[in-house]
Parts: sequence; structure tokens; C-alpha cells
Amino acid sequence: MPSISKKGQAMPASPIRKLVPYADAAKQRGVHVYHLNIGQPDIETPEGARAAVRNADIRVIEYTHSAGLLSYRKKLVEYYKSVGIELTPDEIIVTNGGSEGILFAFNSCLDSDNEVIIPEPFYANYNGFSNMSNVKVKPVFSTIDNGFALPPIEEFEKIITPKTKAIMICNPNNPTGYLYSKEELLKLSKIIEKYDLFLFADEVYREFCYDGEHHFSVMQLKDIEQNVILLDSVSKRYSACGVRIGTFITKNKEVYNTAMKFAQARLSPPTYGQILGEAAIDTPKAYFDTVIENYVARRNCVVEAINRMPGCFCPNPKGAFYAVARLPIDNSDKFCQWLLESFQYQNKTVMLAPATGFYSTPNKGIDEVRISYCLKVADLQEAMNCLAEALKVYPGRK
Amino acid sequence: MPSISKKGQAMPASPIRKLVPYADAAKQRGVHVYHLNIGQPDIETPEGARAAVRNADIRVIEYTHSAGLLSYRKKLVEYYKSVGIELTPDEIIVTNGGSEGILFAFNSCLDSDNEVIIPEPFYANYNGFSNMSNVKVKPVFSTIDNGFALPPIEEFEKIITPKTKAIMICNPNNPTGYLYSKEELLKLSKIIEKYDLFLFADEVYREFCYDGEHHFSVMQLKDIEQNVILLDSVSKRYSACGVRIGTFITKNKEVYNTAMKFAQARLSPPTYGQILGEAAIDTPKAYFDTVIENYVARRNCVVEAINRMPGCFCPNPKGAFYAVARLPIDNSDKFCQWLLESFQYQNKTVMLAPATGFYSTPNKGIDEVRISYCLKVADLQEAMNCLAEALKVYPGRK
Repeated sequence: MPSISKKGQAMPASPIRKLVPYADAAKQRGVHVYHLNIGQPDIETPEGARAAVRNADIRVIEYTHSAGLLSYRKKLVEYYKSVGIELTPDEIIVTNGGSEGILFAFNSCLDSDNEVIIPEPFYANYNGFSNMSNVKVKPVFSTIDNGFALPPIEEFEKIITPKTKAIMICNPNNPTGYLYSKEELLKLSKIIEKYDLFLFADEVYREFCYDGEHHFSVMQLKDIEQNVILLDSVSKRYSACGVRIGTFITKNKEVYNTAMKFAQARLSPPTYGQILGEAAIDTPKAYFDTVIENYVARRNCVVEAINRMPGCFCPNPKGAFYAVARLPIDNSDKFCQWLLESFQYQNKTVMLAPATGFYSTPNKGIDEVRISYCLKVADLQEAMNCLAEALKVYPGRK
Repeated sequence: MPSISKKGQAMPASPIRKLVPYADAAKQRGVHVYHLNIGQPDIETPEGARAAVRNADIRVIEYTHSAGLLSYRKKLVEYYKSVGIELTPDEIIVTNGGSEGILFAFNSCLDSDNEVIIPEPFYANYNGFSNMSNVKVKPVFSTIDNGFALPPIEEFEKIITPKTKAIMICNPNNPTGYLYSKEELLKLSKIIEKYDLFLFADEVYREFCYDGEHHFSVMQLKDIEQNVILLDSVSKRYSACGVRIGTFITKNKEVYNTAMKFAQARLSPPTYGQILGEAAIDTPKAYFDTVIENYVARRNCVVEAINRMPGCFCPNPKGAFYAVARLPIDNSDKFCQWLLESFQYQNKTVMLAPATGFYSTPNKGIDEVRISYCLKVADLQEAMNCLAEALKVYPGRK
């Protein structure tokens, strides 16, 4: 039997999904599991967007343009204009989810001896995509103590080498929920310019900003226009994760044309998802107002509950729908598995993502968990009760 | 401005799409262009499959399981059983089109110093995927003189080295339309076994077999079950290229589990496409009978017309909807561009794919073109008239 590849062996298992078998076993024992491990919103996909798919009158579901339907890219130009980003349709490639855009960015800009600097903790799948593209991630450490703010510029400069080709950020951040300020991004743009690096920015949570804060996009950094690649997705914006529609955006023609060669190899993004995405852009503002209101209530529920638990700390994030909390535990992987395997409170338990999977440095995040607050407040309250009770009896409590 | 990657520079442009700007310019001049360059069927997607999407009552378009909806995988088991392939749902991963399955196979089985042997001419995008995965393609040459039959086993053995990890075939073949016989596949399985290689088989044209011929699948090669990866897609089967749904299939658990890590990194395949794919499996046989009848008439129209043209030769393929023809021309890239740029007959011209893009050996296919016969017979006749007239006046005629 031939052996699998080293690349396959090195591929990290998803920290969000690796505990699924334990959750399934718990459910089989009749225990209710609150899923705080995954960013799957329970919010309805806007009716107008779903109606567009129902009413689409297409007899042959053809390949679309490899960059996506022109009508959709024109509509995306309108959307981006509404959030202060000026684009043309030929600066946009519609992708198979945000994931594919990341692969296009890595493959177009970095070779196997190149490095990309990412503040950690970071979205776990960046590790997988860097492995697939044979690219090396170099982390700079952000800390829970200041709510996971952008690490000082000197920390980036310390690890920049001739192999460094890019810096990547996620804003608002998954897993921390941290929203980078305009000032932080301006500082970042200075090193991008100074070392002539690419800046990859994952802004899929753009609309999810709280407490009156506003999102500042990397596309608004005028001095580094040719260095920036914006990675985006409709998944969270319109609660439409299953349509697998994202966007890869750059004003750099050479990068765009290169990414198009990768896009052409996979022929086209999904037609139905593009139809939904195009219609979703007309979603009324009231939809988002309700969504934001919901998430603020959910966040407050979780953050306040955790900060009331003895020995626990959770910064109050200004964006996305995640929070990273520090718990008085020996090992977050063990703890999250124990919650599913050996714990229940009133026949309920909670599934969390061990934060270790969001760090590339070994042992970082060992007393931290990522909490995705995508459930209704009542359910989150129950989940927090479970967590509080669990921490009272967890054998590995510190 | 930072430079793009070497990988991006090395990425081949699609031979099917690189002439699109010339076709667009011809259309702008008012010339009608017959598209024989791309395998986009004009056949209607089955109504039942489209209706399933229209009637889907889902309020939140969620991520599905990373391997695809269980209901769809169960239905796929039924489909494969109907074509003589015994599977279980956990041997199937639903992919973003057949393309993604190829990437999963390359990434799971081959490292950057490994080689995959592919009979050439081959589907052009294999070059792109091998570039993305840092894998090297080693071609064995199949020839138009015997209709592109499987090259002799000795030709494979000549180029097998310790770096060789896999052989890849496409059956029925794109671009040649050649259908491998059971005997050829049994011979192939012997080298797979002898050298303990992986066998990747792209069988997306399985249903498109003509003249009473039957398809024999690599999944029916019992001695090499652990070596085989089947790559499949609904795109051509149900004329549903835009749904981006394929399958990655293997009985090798280690390979499956490895591919699942790549699948989890990109979260899930598209929901609507899976709904369509699941319903499409109930497409009545009559649909395929009509489709096959259509394609036989189309193939006959093209093959007979070309063989009537002086100095031209086109084997009569038994499968898929492509044919490779040898023309009396100096250079197929120049000729195909000239057809769009400088030629018209009764205000019409034809777009073909230069066969050079389907070979990895330089200058191979220089007097060959790939013809996709996805148009109605009347249109194909007109297109063949154009081609015949063009060959009379082409300045580079040999």
C-alpha cells in the first residue's frame, strides 16, 4: 500500500471539528450539547437572497466566468462603494468561499521558501492553507492581557527576513473578536511599505462591529494600494455559509492576472451561490441592525458570565462573534474533551474550541478557549451555567 | 511593488480560455463564433434536479458536513451501485467540482519531489493543479495514429523511478474521447500493483460511451482497491457545470482521512449544488438515452466532416464529447488565433482549442486541435463548413 504524502501527514486537524466524535457520543448518551465551537450563525439567510435562487430561471446550469458573473461583480462594486471601498469589476475574483481566496493569495504571491507573518492566535485554517501552498507561517504574539491588540510594530520587524513576503491579518478577528483601529492599520501599512510586503486582509466580519465602533478596511490604506489583497466572504455577512462564495480583491494587475490563472484552472465559482450573493447585496439595513443588536446581547451574555466565574478572564471584543477566554485549567484540549466525555449538568454540556489550535507556537493558548456566540441568549445562558459548573468540578482545575 | 511568486509565473494559462479576448473581438466585429473550444454542454440540466433547488425549504444556508451532506452521500452510494461500484458513504467526499478532488488527491498522496505519470495529451488543468501542489507530471505519449489508445505498459515502466508515486488517467478521455478497454485497465493495474503506486482516475464522462461500448471503472479493479482514487463530477453527467459538485472516492482509509483534513480546511462543498446533485440521481434513464443519441449524431457530424477535408485526420472516439484532429497546419496556436482574428466565412468563424495546451512535451500537438462537440448538429455543420473553408486559405497550411 503506497504511503500518504508528508504534506498530508503535516496537515493539521481542524480544532473546531476534531472533537465532533466526542460531541456525537455525548448526544447518543442523551446529553444536550451547546455548540459554541463553530461560527455557524443561527440567523436566517435574508429572504430576498433565498428567493433569488428559488426564482432563478436557468435551464442549463453553466460554468460562469472564472472571475464570477459580471452582473455579480458589478453589484459587488456597489456594495464595496457603500462601505467606502472604490473598485472596478475587474479587480474582483469571486471565489469558492473565503477559503479559496486565501489559497489564491498564497499561491500567487508566495513560494515554498517564503514566509507570511500572522499575529497569533489566528484562524486555524490558515495553518492548513499554508501547508497546502508550502508556505511558512511566522507568528507574532498578541496577548489576552490587552484584548489581543495588534502586536507592537517592533515585534513584526524583529522577525522580518529576506524570506518574508507578506503579513496577514483578520479584522475583525477570528478567534479573538478584536477590531483593529485605523491607527493600528496605519502603523501596519508603514512596515508593509518599508519592506515592500504584501498585506493579506481577511475582512469577512466587516459588518460585525459593536459599541459604535467602525471598520477601517485595508483597501482604504492609499499608500500601499499595490500591496493589498482583500479576502472576503458572504458566509457570515448574510448567514449563508453553505453557498461557498467569497471574493479575492486586488488593485495590483499582476497579482490579479496571476490569481486568474488559478481561478481558470478550477473553472468557476458556484452559480447558485453567486445568484444568492448578488441578491443579498440588496438586503435592507434593518436586517443588519437586528443582527448586530442580537450579537451585542449575545456577546454581553457570554463575556459578563465568564468574567463572573472565579479565575476566569474574557476581554470584551468589539467585533466578529468570537471571544477568547482564559480559564483556570491545565490544558484546554483535555478540558474541552472532558466537557463532552465526562461532564454534564442537568443533562447538558457545552462544546468549545481549544485555543491551542489557533496558535502555531506549541503550548500557547493552553489555558484559553475560543467561544463562538452564535446561539440565542437563552441558550448561551444555559451554556454558561454548564461552563461555570464544569469549572467547579474539572479535575485539572488550577 | 512586491513580485508575484515563481509558482504564479509558472502557472499555465488555460488553453481553452486564452483565446477568449480574440473571440470577444470577433464578436464585436459582428462575426458569429461557434464555440468548439469548451466542454460546456448545451443540454438542459434535468428539470427534477433544478426543481429540487427551487423547492428547497432552508432558512439558514449552513455549512454542510465537510464530506458533504450524509443524505447526498447515501444517494451517491445508490448511484455508484447502479454502475457496478460498491461503496459506503464514508468512502466519499463531496468536492467543489471535480477540480478540488484532483487537488485533494495530489496533496494527500504526493510531495513536492514526487512524480505522477499521465498519458498525454491530457486535460490541460492537470498541469495547473500539479503546479499548485508542487508535483511533477511525467507524460507518456499516446498517439493519434491509433486513436490515442493507452500507451504500451513498457512506456510507463521506462519512466517509473523511486520518485513516481502515481499514475493518472481520464476515462473516457478529455481531450481525445478515447475509452479505455477493460483489458487496458487490467494491464495498467498490474504496474500499479508491481510498483505499489496510486491510481487516480478521472471518470467524469462515465455515462458518455457510444456505439454499444461500456465503461469499466478503476473501482472494479479488485486487486488494487487500496491504491485507487476515483475522481468524479456531476458537471457533464447532468449538464450542471455551474453547481461545482464533484466527488473524491477511495477505499483507502488513510488516504480518506488525510483528504478529509484538506476538506475540513475549506469547511464544506456548496449546499445548493449538493441538493441539485442528490435529486439528479433520480434522473430517468430516458434523459441519458436522448443525450447519448444527440452526442453520437454530433460526433459523427464532426468526425465525418473532418475526415472528408483534404489532409485532415480525426479518429472516431468512443466516449466523452471531445475529439482531437490532425490538421495540415504549421502551428495550432497560430491557426486557432488566426481563425478568430483574420478569418470569417459568411460572417462566421469557429473557435477551437490548440492541442498544444494538452501536452506537457513542447511542440507536441502542434498540428492538432481539440474539438468539443457540445453544439447542435446544424451548428456543428456550419462550424465544419467554416473550418473546411479556413483550411483552404490559411497562410500557414502545410
